[in-house]
Amino acid sequence: MFVKNCWYCAGWDYELSQGKNALLARRLANEPIVLYRKPDGGVVAMEDRCPHRQAALHLGQKEGDSLRCMYHGMKFGPDGKCTEVPGQDKIPPQAWVRTFPVVEKDNWIWVWMGDPAKADPSLICFAVGPSDKNWNVKTSQVSVNANYRLEIANLMDLSHLTWIHRKTIGGTDAWTRTKPQRTMLPRGINSKIWMYSEPPPVFAQHLFPPGAVFDMSFDVDVTLPCNFVLHFQVYTPGTVTDGPSNGQLMLDSYTSQAVTPRDEDWVDYYYSWGTSVATDAPGMSEMLLEAVNAAFLEDKAVLEAQYRNVKERPHAKQVGILLDAGPEKMLWLLDKFLAEEAKEGTL
Amino acid sequence: MFVKNCWYCAGWDYELSQGKNALLARRLANEPIVLYRKPDGGVVAMEDRCPHRQAALHLGQKEGDSLRCMYHGMKFGPDGKCTEVPGQDKIPPQAWVRTFPVVEKDNWIWVWMGDPAKADPSLICFAVGPSDKNWNVKTSQVSVNANYRLEIANLMDLSHLTWIHRKTIGGTDAWTRTKPQRTMLPRGINSKIWMYSEPPPVFAQHLFPPGAVFDMSFDVDVTLPCNFVLHFQVYTPGTVTDGPSNGQLMLDSYTSQAVTPRDEDWVDYYYSWGTSVATDAPGMSEMLLEAVNAAFLEDKAVLEAQYRNVKERPHAKQVGILLDAGPEKMLWLLDKFLAEEAKEGTL
Amino acid sequence: MFVKNCWYCAGWDYELSQGKNALLARRLANEPIVLYRKPDGGVVAMEDRCPHRQAALHLGQKEGDSLRCMYHGMKFGPDGKCTEVPGQDKIPPQAWVRTFPVVEKDNWIWVWMGDPAKADPSLICFAVGPSDKNWNVKTSQVSVNANYRLEIANLMDLSHLTWIHRKTIGGTDAWTRTKPQRTMLPRGINSKIWMYSEPPPVFAQHLFPPGAVFDMSFDVDVTLPCNFVLHFQVYTPGTVTDGPSNGQLMLDSYTSQAVTPRDEDWVDYYYSWGTSVATDAPGMSEMLLEAVNAAFLEDKAVLEAQYRNVKERPHAKQVGILLDAGPEKMLWLLDKFLAEEAKEGTL
Repeated sequence: MFVKNCWYCAGWDYELSQGKNALLARRLANEPIVLYRKPDGGVVAMEDRCPHRQAALHLGQKEGDSLRCMYHGMKFGPDGKCTEVPGQDKIPPQAWVRTFPVVEKDNWIWVWMGDPAKADPSLICFAVGPSDKNWNVKTSQVSVNANYRLEIANLMDLSHLTWIHRKTIGGTDAWTRTKPQRTMLPRGINSKIWMYSEPPPVFAQHLFPPGAVFDMSFDVDVTLPCNFVLHFQVYTPGTVTDGPSNGQLMLDSYTSQAVTPRDEDWVDYYYSWGTSVATDAPGMSEMLLEAVNAAFLEDKAVLEAQYRNVKERPHAKQVGILLDAGPEKMLWLLDKFLAEEAKEGTL
Repeated sequence: MFVKNCWYCAGWDYELSQGKNALLARRLANEPIVLYRKPDGGVVAMEDRCPHRQAALHLGQKEGDSLRCMYHGMKFGPDGKCTEVPGQDKIPPQAWVRTFPVVEKDNWIWVWMGDPAKADPSLICFAVGPSDKNWNVKTSQVSVNANYRLEIANLMDLSHLTWIHRKTIGGTDAWTRTKPQRTMLPRGINSKIWMYSEPPPVFAQHLFPPGAVFDMSFDVDVTLPCNFVLHFQVYTPGTVTDGPSNGQLMLDSYTSQAVTPRDEDWVDYYYSWGTSVATDAPGMSEMLLEAVNAAFLEDKAVLEAQYRNVKERPHAKQVGILLDAGPEKMLWLLDKFLAEEAKEGTL
Repeated sequence: MFVKNCWYCAGWDYELSQGKNALLARRLANEPIVLYRKPDGGVVAMEDRCPHRQAALHLGQKEGDSLRCMYHGMKFGPDGKCTEVPGQDKIPPQAWVRTFPVVEKDNWIWVWMGDPAKADPSLICFAVGPSDKNWNVKTSQVSVNANYRLEIANLMDLSHLTWIHRKTIGGTDAWTRTKPQRTMLPRGINSKIWMYSEPPPVFAQHLFPPGAVFDMSFDVDVTLPCNFVLHFQVYTPGTVTDGPSNGQLMLDSYTSQAVTPRDEDWVDYYYSWGTSVATDAPGMSEMLLEAVNAAFLEDKAVLEAQYRNVKERPHAKQVGILLDAGPEKMLWLLDKFLAEEAKEGTL
């Protein structure tokens, strides 16, 4: 089940070149989609299925701003309408492909999977992309064989850094001692967490003397379907014990993560991390990316094994704990949107 | 769904040696079959399933003209009757394996999957095999993860050479300008296509000066279940614009292709191409085989992606175009045979 | 279908070290199980599923005699009860994991999958393990993609050595001339077979002059679910033709084999072979292990192909032969236990 009236990230803008065969096949919310870039730079997203005999359009070829199916040569404009059928002059009226609204923002390609009339670009989440001049952001991606609800639960409870990520981006159990301040957003939840005089993440501990501690601030938006954008700041230890640190800002960074449900069983995860130019240092953003690359392989192993268990026994016992509050809030929001769309008949 | 009263190609004759364990496991029209060659040269085709406990007979061993199951040692004659049960003298009356009529023709092994009384060898399609002294024919094979109906549609509309095969055996869009002359055969369709002053296929263009053109003739039989035999001739440009070219015959060739449905999801494709001895040249047939090898990998990619789409949405929109006339005729013929067998109770 | 009130072999004791992450994930009778060794040496077997959100416990970590789930940090004692929930003081009463009785015997780890009250260690089959000082036993394992009923049928009719194992552990067709003496055991069947003046197994024939023959004795227990323990002895040819040979004992050996159903489709096969210290010679047990390694790959090929046939046509014809007597007796016993448990509501 997927919210349809929602922007889904289809990948990085640099994945779509002007090449003749630069056709990107992606599956978003269980719809096979082909994406390509027009000569004017705009991006087209179409159903990856020729209306003739269901050939895959991503095996086709670009011609101007059109896409030609390379099985029998039918050509489709960027609006999905067929403009040429080899061997005949008349275009059958049913010869069109569904297209989807597309917006590029923060170097991500966003596709609206529902009613085009409702495709409001202001609903796209805030993020910091690699071409932002104020930040030095590095990018990567990974696929995980799990339903996106498990990813939502993972991202809404960062206490798992203590356990899953004990060898990488973890390094403190302050997560379980620190209650996030959560605020509902129209399509998500903002969480703020402050930590004081805690050790840095494991991947960075070699940079400091033994026993070094810092204040840290985590300000994260999780938005539908499953986007996670975290403003992560590190300070020298200050004197406050509530709210933002009054230490000296040492690292200012953003990690932007779009977890796109491919179908019920897989997510495609496009993510980045990088420092502000002001707090950058040679090799710093590269180290952050290496750390999150390693961490996401840790998550992948855990979530894939969890998902196998869930698929085997969908109705197994589930014991609630206090740390579930975040995951449950976000899953409740998702279910609310799903229920509304079911009622409207959108789904 | 498969026509049962029909010859199915099980492969090349050279795949069956006199070796003790030369037992070929094939699946034809969704029946698991084991094939072996007797000392007298004849070929036996049996269900690949021991009647005792369903062990696979292709893991057995040949003894004279018999096949011994190497699980518990039961021995079966070429008629499928059990002749020996280790540990007992009496042969249970049910101890027999179904056998199938077999004919070798044009270096292909043909198996009749229906009523043996109706197994008329004259129903086997014409072809030109590698041992034909008048032709220099090279052979190959490939498997495709698609239902054979998609292969029929592919082979009955050669306009796809323009698109799928634009880098290999294509080279002209004359296919969409040229209406084939089609004639119904008892179990198939003959199509004749003439082209005049067209560039040669891409794989051969380096042999001629830029801009060289030729007349070409395509005379192809497609027969049930999905055999394709094409007489392909190239002439210097003549003066006629209808019917056979009156130019000089430069290349006379046959490509014989048996596309055997393994089951609903796969075909096994046995094919060859070669020139007449009269128009042969060193390396010529090798080049033809390389070209068709490359082309069939192009088809494989397209048909497998198409089949994934078809399986995902069997009832998706299908817009008809004029070029569908050939595919539809042959699929209509297939459905006619299927309906007749359903009525007779053969299926 | 699996008998639940039964000991299932989960592997070799040396597979469970004292390492922090030495957590063994196994599936026994279709239950996912995690096993670990406590500091006191004892072994714990738990359901491999955290009661919180179904994370896989085998990705956790050992702490003393407890297991911590490394997703959200919940800790479980060796009795399965949760003793710690990060972020809260109160342990929810439902926060426990099912545990299973475990016994180590003959270097195998045995897990009781049914009612713990009935877990009687005396029901574990006799075997000879690698740490037995009187025997020089070597161990190995293999997985087979077949239902365990096919393994039972395989192990209860050793006549298949003549056929499947003709190049390895076979070497005589005396199996079909020799009727085993069978005795019912409470949970299995004992079979005794004597052979006189027969060639040795193929893998050992190079050790003797051509035509050398021996008396051989096979005394085998097959017990539920699918354990096979064979006392195999080789004698110089004696003069008796019934019962134990009166030749000189040349090789005294035990092969102990536990075939554990992982689920309906797979078995995990833990096995060993070795000579008595009295009849040992350098390299002898190694040769026996090599022989059985090769033989079990032969079985694997045959059983996997047979199982594909059985799955495709579960109701295909099955012709009975005299040699089925052994398999049928043991499968009857299995079905009796299954029916009893179904009646009791254990299954």
